[in-house]
Amino acid sequence: MSQKKKKIVTVGGGTGSYTVLSGLKNLEGISLTAIVSMADNGGSTRILRDELGVLPPGDVRQCLVALSEHSEAVRKLMSYRFAHGSLKSHSFGNILLAALEKVTGRFSQGVRVASEILKVKGEVIPVTDNEADLCISLTGGKKIKGQIEIGNTDLQKKGFKKIFFAKKVKLNERAREALLAADYVIIGPGTYYESLVPNLIVPEFKKTLKKSGAKIILPVNLTNKKGHTLYWKASDYVKNTEKYLGRQVDFVLLNNQPPSLAQIRKYKLKEGDGVLVEDDFFDPRAVRRPLISHALIKYDKNDVRQKFRSFIRHDSKKIAKSVAEIIKRKIPR
Amino acid sequence: MSQKKKKIVTVGGGTGSYTVLSGLKNLEGISLTAIVSMADNGGSTRILRDELGVLPPGDVRQCLVALSEHSEAVRKLMSYRFAHGSLKSHSFGNILLAALEKVTGRFSQGVRVASEILKVKGEVIPVTDNEADLCISLTGGKKIKGQIEIGNTDLQKKGFKKIFFAKKVKLNERAREALLAADYVIIGPGTYYESLVPNLIVPEFKKTLKKSGAKIILPVNLTNKKGHTLYWKASDYVKNTEKYLGRQVDFVLLNNQPPSLAQIRKYKLKEGDGVLVEDDFFDPRAVRRPLISHALIKYDKNDVRQKFRSFIRHDSKKIAKSVAEIIKRKIPR
Repeated sequence: MSQKKKKIVTVGGGTGSYTVLSGLKNLEGISLTAIVSMADNGGSTRILRDELGVLPPGDVRQCLVALSEHSEAVRKLMSYRFAHGSLKSHSFGNILLAALEKVTGRFSQGVRVASEILKVKGEVIPVTDNEADLCISLTGGKKIKGQIEIGNTDLQKKGFKKIFFAKKVKLNERAREALLAADYVIIGPGTYYESLVPNLIVPEFKKTLKKSGAKIILPVNLTNKKGHTLYWKASDYVKNTEKYLGRQVDFVLLNNQPPSLAQIRKYKLKEGDGVLVEDDFFDPRAVRRPLISHALIKYDKNDVRQKFRSFIRHDSKKIAKSVAEIIKRKIPR
Repeated sequence: MSQKKKKIVTVGGGTGSYTVLSGLKNLEGISLTAIVSMADNGGSTRILRDELGVLPPGDVRQCLVALSEHSEAVRKLMSYRFAHGSLKSHSFGNILLAALEKVTGRFSQGVRVASEILKVKGEVIPVTDNEADLCISLTGGKKIKGQIEIGNTDLQKKGFKKIFFAKKVKLNERAREALLAADYVIIGPGTYYESLVPNLIVPEFKKTLKKSGAKIILPVNLTNKKGHTLYWKASDYVKNTEKYLGRQVDFVLLNNQPPSLAQIRKYKLKEGDGVLVEDDFFDPRAVRRPLISHALIKYDKNDVRQKFRSFIRHDSKKIAKSVAEIIKRKIPR
């Protein structure tokens, strides 16, 4: 029976993958693997990287929580951020992963032990076990190093040239196996150059995905990031992603439900025009569904990065339902 | 079948209870409950108490590790101490318990969730859920507050008068139930005024133990603490403990195996005379067995309190074997 399960692999960072995995976890007849970007260098993660020399735990933590079948208290524990003292702003889950890397000697091995502790349904795999310092070169010749620093740079104004890693990184062997065995690979959603592309540019990712018989599903982002993807339309996401992948995506999952007026107003006030992704992708691969979440997003006051987190998000149940439809009816092909 | 299991309750602090529980865990036909002192205010525990206002996790952590049936990696994780940065010297397990107290709202509830995560065989119960600041009054009228401060005071020179808590503490309801249901209660080993007595002076402890049909086993300490119990003999431990309990102990477990010459030499060099507890307890309740550990104790260089930890210790297997003999043969009565 388990051999008939559809093997789904998600590729992304923290928040976006969390949403997708939380929804997919409740689907029957699938097995789940999350491949997670390792480029994060902000907040609690940055402190742990700097002070302890560990790999960035933040994104992996969110995926572990999404797939944990443990009690609500344990899931809350993983996301709990200390409010005072020397542990201030650290999330417990980040500390757990940092300690496990130290105890087991290897980040991905630590993730495996954490999965066991958290009763994770499926598998969470860091895309690489190497230090993955993200870099971007600008057309002027300048180089920006670090995901956070890149996030704060207006790449569109300064001229984006190339995205790469400071040092050589190697695709995690388990990630390679999962990509080869996958029936479906879901790429995103997530901040484009900070969460998605840092997976796709790991050498061997592209090659492995080409060898794989998996169909690729691309849930297009709902919003653009200023200075990175401002004014991008759905077709830009498809085009750019296919460039990194070196192959076509098979399904383009598009939201056809407008955000609430309140959401739009709040967003425009904060971000201005061109942040809502326009749907211009008229192609048989398009799958249009209502995908937006109208839930009020609660921010954690101890999360130093809360103001950077998007408040127009996909709804995990809606996205899971659409993925289930793609798998069952194999639309459009 | 599980109703026939002998119910054993241990009472103590961190290191001593760890030793007893590690041994007893492997015995068949018993169920284990650890009642743990909450007076600790040193090292990593002190920082967490001061900065986060949580109850002291250190002793409970050690008992959880002793009873955990999880993988070796998880047990190592719990005792892992960070070596650098803002997390320096904190043990991971202490951080876990601090976070769980915050998430669940109550220390003993957090301990329960931790037990679930760690697959604990048996139950670990903090003796109280209240802040338990240990105090000692001296004959001159002076008062010393805090377990560590008490540990650093020469009570024998300055004149010990009374040991008590700064504020009212209440016996944990689960501890009360466990004491009432117990077949055997093992008190110690452990530093006398810092690990053992802070359990016995919790109001209702004495009364509850009197109501209980449990037999009391007292494994007498191997060494005395300078300034606290220097020159105490086995009979002093029995006499003093019975004073706190308001009743007789039923079995006095005494070591009849000398430490190695190397251990004695090292100990005398560091501590002087009168630290090895002499056996002067000639009473039918005495049970004499070889109980000493000859294992080399490895210290954790990131443990700020390592130099205070004893290096003449009970052997967990030997102590468990003796307890099993007491239970089976019911010697001497």
